[in-house]
Amino acid sequence: MEFRDQAIAARRASVELATLNRAQKDKALHAMADALAAAEAELLAANEVDVASARSAGTEESIVDRLSLTPARIAGMVQGLRDLAALPDPVGDVVRGWKLPNGVSVRQVRVPFGVVGIIYEARPNVTADAAGICLKSGNAALLRGSSSALNTNRVTAEALRRGLTDAGVTPDAVHLVEGGREVTGELMRARGLVDVLIPRGGAGLIQAVVDGSTVPVIETGTGNCHVFVDADADVEQAVTILLNAKTQRPSVCNAAETLLVHKDIADRFLPRALEALGGAGVTVHGDDATRSYSDTVVAAKADEYDAEYLTLDLAAKVVDSIDEALEHIRTHTTGHSETIVTGSRTSAERFAAEVDAAAVLVNASSRFVDGGEFGFGAEIGISTQKLHARGPMGLPEMTSSKYVIEGAGQVRA
Amino acid sequence: MEFRDQAIAARRASVELATLNRAQKDKALHAMADALAAAEAELLAANEVDVASARSAGTEESIVDRLSLTPARIAGMVQGLRDLAALPDPVGDVVRGWKLPNGVSVRQVRVPFGVVGIIYEARPNVTADAAGICLKSGNAALLRGSSSALNTNRVTAEALRRGLTDAGVTPDAVHLVEGGREVTGELMRARGLVDVLIPRGGAGLIQAVVDGSTVPVIETGTGNCHVFVDADADVEQAVTILLNAKTQRPSVCNAAETLLVHKDIADRFLPRALEALGGAGVTVHGDDATRSYSDTVVAAKADEYDAEYLTLDLAAKVVDSIDEALEHIRTHTTGHSETIVTGSRTSAERFAAEVDAAAVLVNASSRFVDGGEFGFGAEIGISTQKLHARGPMGLPEMTSSKYVIEGAGQVRA
Repeated sequence: MEFRDQAIAARRASVELATLNRAQKDKALHAMADALAAAEAELLAANEVDVASARSAGTEESIVDRLSLTPARIAGMVQGLRDLAALPDPVGDVVRGWKLPNGVSVRQVRVPFGVVGIIYEARPNVTADAAGICLKSGNAALLRGSSSALNTNRVTAEALRRGLTDAGVTPDAVHLVEGGREVTGELMRARGLVDVLIPRGGAGLIQAVVDGSTVPVIETGTGNCHVFVDADADVEQAVTILLNAKTQRPSVCNAAETLLVHKDIADRFLPRALEALGGAGVTVHGDDATRSYSDTVVAAKADEYDAEYLTLDLAAKVVDSIDEALEHIRTHTTGHSETIVTGSRTSAERFAAEVDAAAVLVNASSRFVDGGEFGFGAEIGISTQKLHARGPMGLPEMTSSKYVIEGAGQVRA
Repeated sequence: MEFRDQAIAARRASVELATLNRAQKDKALHAMADALAAAEAELLAANEVDVASARSAGTEESIVDRLSLTPARIAGMVQGLRDLAALPDPVGDVVRGWKLPNGVSVRQVRVPFGVVGIIYEARPNVTADAAGICLKSGNAALLRGSSSALNTNRVTAEALRRGLTDAGVTPDAVHLVEGGREVTGELMRARGLVDVLIPRGGAGLIQAVVDGSTVPVIETGTGNCHVFVDADADVEQAVTILLNAKTQRPSVCNAAETLLVHKDIADRFLPRALEALGGAGVTVHGDDATRSYSDTVVAAKADEYDAEYLTLDLAAKVVDSIDEALEHIRTHTTGHSETIVTGSRTSAERFAAEVDAAAVLVNASSRFVDGGEFGFGAEIGISTQKLHARGPMGLPEMTSSKYVIEGAGQVRA
């Protein structure tokens, strides 16, 4: 189907989806899971084709790994759909309600967006995850995956659509958007047909979507996350938090990328921290002050303070004051998750008030900024923008609202 | 000051504004009100210049009227600022909060956006209103008014900035953005410096901002609002609601523009309704079925069902069923406020569930869809988009949120 026909079909489907109750949606999610599980052999075969093409095109092994499906990964996708069925349905929730003085009743009710476009890279699990999250939140999904995963995504989307049909829900709730680059452009400019676009991937993808879209975009993901170790931090705590934030899973957006150290604690903190980081395989890229504590610290280039390494690398800098730390963060933050380790209430409050980010952490690891850790059960991404949703986005963040106003003939005086 | 310098100054000011408490902001609002009141003579003189230019350029009298200030209108602007001081401060409100199983505390707290751009037409009161709403919600304001109101806006902005200074708040919280069309373009593409753009004006202005902006936009305002009179509506109630929705203030976005009548009630409803509308000076533009009830109904052109008249005109059409009404609304709605008059619970529930709009009304006038009527106290506009805010936008809708996460050294396992 051409993109425009898919978008129109999705729009039409969204009317039906908006009126499904939770039981109908949960039944559909289980049917999608069943159909996906039944397609395992076909999925693995299609994925083998994609993986072989990627390898012969000389694709980096880390990307090939992301692209690869295994029976365990398919089981994860299947379980993800079943887990969604176990979550509460946000649609229909009354956010607030009141009566006007004349007795008219006003309720603000959660409703689906309508049609959601997801633009993503070569992770085939996103196809099932995003389709499931959209379905549970009552939205039709236009899934624009990477061409490198096309065969895998086709089999996945076909299975999901079969599941929908089995459950008596229109298969037009889920579309895989195929075609060349120009189709991505059509999707980004389909204002009126598509209600919101969510790019999931690296900084380049997100920037391209932000720049090229007339459809409203929810930005997710890039994180140049700072850890500021204040003058009176507990050294042991600071080392533990830094190490966890940097090394517990370095490839994700809430991992630490830059360390700022107050000069008054540098003598006590840095030798311990550098030793621990070195032991964990982290390469520290520091300024002269940091380098004076260890020969293992390499010189940081100026632009490294803007880097989102996503690897076992860490930029580091000694600062004269909390003011300098705040100014540094203001200049280099991507607005994701920023941490202070401090024993001072004043510093903690100032940092929490002045740092402009989706999450500000005091004496805790930034790895907690995550829909799973927050107890959301499902996460479509971590929004780093200020409109609509900021921080981890669960099912309620995948909805809009509508005022339902009921009277008995009242008019305005 | 050049636009870019203003935007940078506003960005810097936003850091200070985010940390002001309510008392400081209320003091500033009263000081802004005082300074504006003190500038009355200067304001009237500047406005006379703008009005004279507009008249000599042959501007429509209705637009000249909007542009014109009187002592009473200035008093209204002054009072508007004082009323804002009486409203609760949304900044710092904890939207929700909980503890993770490991004891880490998570709070989602309202914070200002940062820098808000307002692009508006020749209503000089918007300069003071928008500056006040931005200040109370902790945002710096970049005000891009119409060049036809430039002299008036300059005096207003200067007075507001003096008031800020008097209250000890940085005057860079408020900027009037001057210059040619290219400056509007700069404002629309100032992503990173400006957090959100709110166009206030007609459909053309809003479309231009939506199309040209890389900064996130909140769409406000256009309303092709329908009134559907269902088969078993109370005829008296339907006439009263329709008349109020159409005539109580026809120039505003929540006024009715299209009437849909179920064929089974047309014989009883339309003669009464057409007589009442005629008596109120409304010209009805109808289909053949509507015209069969009165010679006063003029033939509707097809594109009139998309019209936002904002005058004493009303498109009308007889439909065979609620399905046809829903389909008509789906095709022609601008997503503002849609009304059903009905005695049937089933029809009311279906209409409320299936109509995709900011507000759906059952047996009440769409004129209630208004920040003032909702009790919000102040309104920056009525959002017709689905992201962030939908419907009347009060002070809380002028904020984003931030997660503040506090621990005692916890890390992720």
